[in-house]
Amino acid sequence: MKRILITGGAGFIGANLARRLLAEGHAVTILDNFYTGRRDNLAGLGVTLLERDVRDGVPGEWDWIFDLACPASPPHYQRDPLFTLTTSIDGIRAVLEAAQRCGARVLHASTSEVYGDPLVHPQPETDWGHVNTVGIRSCYDEGKRVAETFALEHRRAYGTDVRLVRIFNTYGPHMDPADGRVVSNFILQALRDEPITLYGDGSQTRSFQFVDDLVEGFLAYIQADPAALDAFFAPKGYAIPVLNMGNPGEFTVRQLAEEVLRQIPTSRSELVFRPLPGDDPKRRKPDIAWASECLGWRPTIPLAQGLAKTIAYFRALA
Amino acid sequence: MKRILITGGAGFIGANLARRLLAEGHAVTILDNFYTGRRDNLAGLGVTLLERDVRDGVPGEWDWIFDLACPASPPHYQRDPLFTLTTSIDGIRAVLEAAQRCGARVLHASTSEVYGDPLVHPQPETDWGHVNTVGIRSCYDEGKRVAETFALEHRRAYGTDVRLVRIFNTYGPHMDPADGRVVSNFILQALRDEPITLYGDGSQTRSFQFVDDLVEGFLAYIQADPAALDAFFAPKGYAIPVLNMGNPGEFTVRQLAEEVLRQIPTSRSELVFRPLPGDDPKRRKPDIAWASECLGWRPTIPLAQGLAKTIAYFRALA
Repeated sequence: MKRILITGGAGFIGANLARRLLAEGHAVTILDNFYTGRRDNLAGLGVTLLERDVRDGVPGEWDWIFDLACPASPPHYQRDPLFTLTTSIDGIRAVLEAAQRCGARVLHASTSEVYGDPLVHPQPETDWGHVNTVGIRSCYDEGKRVAETFALEHRRAYGTDVRLVRIFNTYGPHMDPADGRVVSNFILQALRDEPITLYGDGSQTRSFQFVDDLVEGFLAYIQADPAALDAFFAPKGYAIPVLNMGNPGEFTVRQLAEEVLRQIPTSRSELVFRPLPGDDPKRRKPDIAWASECLGWRPTIPLAQGLAKTIAYFRALA
Repeated sequence: MKRILITGGAGFIGANLARRLLAEGHAVTILDNFYTGRRDNLAGLGVTLLERDVRDGVPGEWDWIFDLACPASPPHYQRDPLFTLTTSIDGIRAVLEAAQRCGARVLHASTSEVYGDPLVHPQPETDWGHVNTVGIRSCYDEGKRVAETFALEHRRAYGTDVRLVRIFNTYGPHMDPADGRVVSNFILQALRDEPITLYGDGSQTRSFQFVDDLVEGFLAYIQADPAALDAFFAPKGYAIPVLNMGNPGEFTVRQLAEEVLRQIPTSRSELVFRPLPGDDPKRRKPDIAWASECLGWRPTIPLAQGLAKTIAYFRALA
C-alpha cells in the first residue's frame, strides 16, 4: 500500500485514477481547489480530501504524487489566464518541493499541447514543438512547457524522481460536461438533440484515448524502476523521463461526430460548421514507440467501445 | 525628466542604457542583485542603487521600467538553472505588479532565444520558435518564453503598458569579460595572444548588434505612443507589442574572429576548433521590418566600428 497524493484529483483524469488506485488497495488523498474539479467525482469514494490551492504548497508525506492540477480545456484555461499560468508554474514548484522534502516519486501530467501546432506528424517526444508565446492558447501551452523545464532542473539539482507524461486527447466517464471538449460536446449535443458543432470543415484529426488506457499507463510508469528509466533515457540525451501517452488511432472530428450519432440512433442532431478559433492545432497524433518500448504499454480500447462507456456515463448524469 | 528604473541595470545593456538616460537628464535607479551585474559598471555614474533581487518585489514609483534582470549568457544562466528560471518568471511578475501599482510603462527585455534553433531565416516576430523544453538551454529559453506570456496576460487582464523587445546578439563596452560571449571571448583571446576558440567549423552565422544601436531602439520604443503601437499591432492579431531588435548583417563566427585579429594586428592568436555544445543554435538573424516600420529604427553602426570601440574598452580594462 502506497501513500498517494493526486493534485487536481477531483478532475476528470484524477477521478478515474483515484478509483483505480483505491481498487488496488492504496491510500489516496486528493488535493483540489475545485476551480475545475467536481465534488461529484469524489462522492462516496473514500479518499481523503485536502481542499486547497496547489500553489499554496503541498503538505504531507507521500510515496507517490500524481501532479494533475491545472485547468486543461480552453474554456477553463482561458477564463483566467494568469491563474492558469501560475497554477502550472507555482503548482509544479510546490509539488517538487514536497517531493524533495518527503522523497516522493512524482508523475507530472504534461500535455500534447507542448507540441502546439506540430510540424512533425505523428509527434515523437523528441519534437520540440511549435507554440506561440503570445497567443490565446499561450497561457496553457507555455505554462505547461516551462513546468517541464522546472521538473528537469529540479531533478538535475536535487535528484527528485519526477517523470513527465505528455497526455494526448483523452475521454471517458467523469469528463466535465461543461469543459467544451469535443467528445463531451458531441455526446451532450446528440443526447439533447442539439446541432453538433464542428469547427472548420471537421477534417482536422485528433487521437482519442480512453481514460482507462491512460490510467494503465500511469500505473506502469510510476512503478517503473528508476534505474531502468535512466538506462532508457540517458543514452537519448534526456536527463528526465518524458513519455507520450495517447491513442495513435487517428480520426477526423467529423468521423467522431458520426460515430457518436451512430451510437445514439434516436438523436435528431445534425452537423453544423463554425469558424476555427485562433491557434487551433490542426493535427495531433502521438508517437508512442517510447512508452511501448520502455513500459510495454499501449492503448487497447477501441474508440467505439470507449465511446459506449462515455455515452452511458453522460446518459446517467442527465 | 522621467523617473526610471532599470532592473538588472548593472549588467552590460543596463550600464549602457543608464549612461544614455542620464545624459538625457532622467533620474535613473538601478535594481540589481549583482548575480551577474558588475559594480564597476556603475562606478561614478550618479544613479540610485536598489541592491536587491527582483524576485523579492519591485518597490518605488516609476514612469518607465526597463526590465533587464536575468542572467543571459550560457555560462551564467546554466550555473544555477532554477535561479535562472525563477528570475525570468518571478522577476517579470514583480515588475508587472509594480507597473500596475504605479502606472509605469514597461519595456521588457525578451530575447532571440525564444526562437531557439529557428526553422525560418531570418526570424520575424511571427515565428513561433523551435525550442527544447528539457535541454541544457531550456532554463533560459523557456523562462524567457513564458515571461512573454505573463506580459501578454497581465496586459490583457489589467491594461498594463508592457512592451516586448526580442534582443538579438549584442556587443559593446561593459560586456562582462567572463560571460563567455563570442565577441568578448575573441577580443580577450586576441589581446592575450591565446588561441581563438571556435565551436564546430565556425560557419554558424550570428548577427552582431552594437549596443548603442539597441539603446537607441529602446528609447524610440519606450517613447512610442500607446495608441500608435496598438494601431500597428492589433490588426496583426497581437494583443501586446513585440519587436525584434538586432542587426540583420550576417557574419559567420569565423569572419568575426578574423575581423578581431585584423583590428589587433599585434596579436599572435590562432584559430582553434572545438565541438559544438548541445542545442547550440545554428543560425540567427533578425527580421527588423516591424521595428523599422513602427519606430523608424534600424541599426547604423557597422561591425568594424563597433568592434573598434569594444576592443578599446577591453584594452582599457586590461
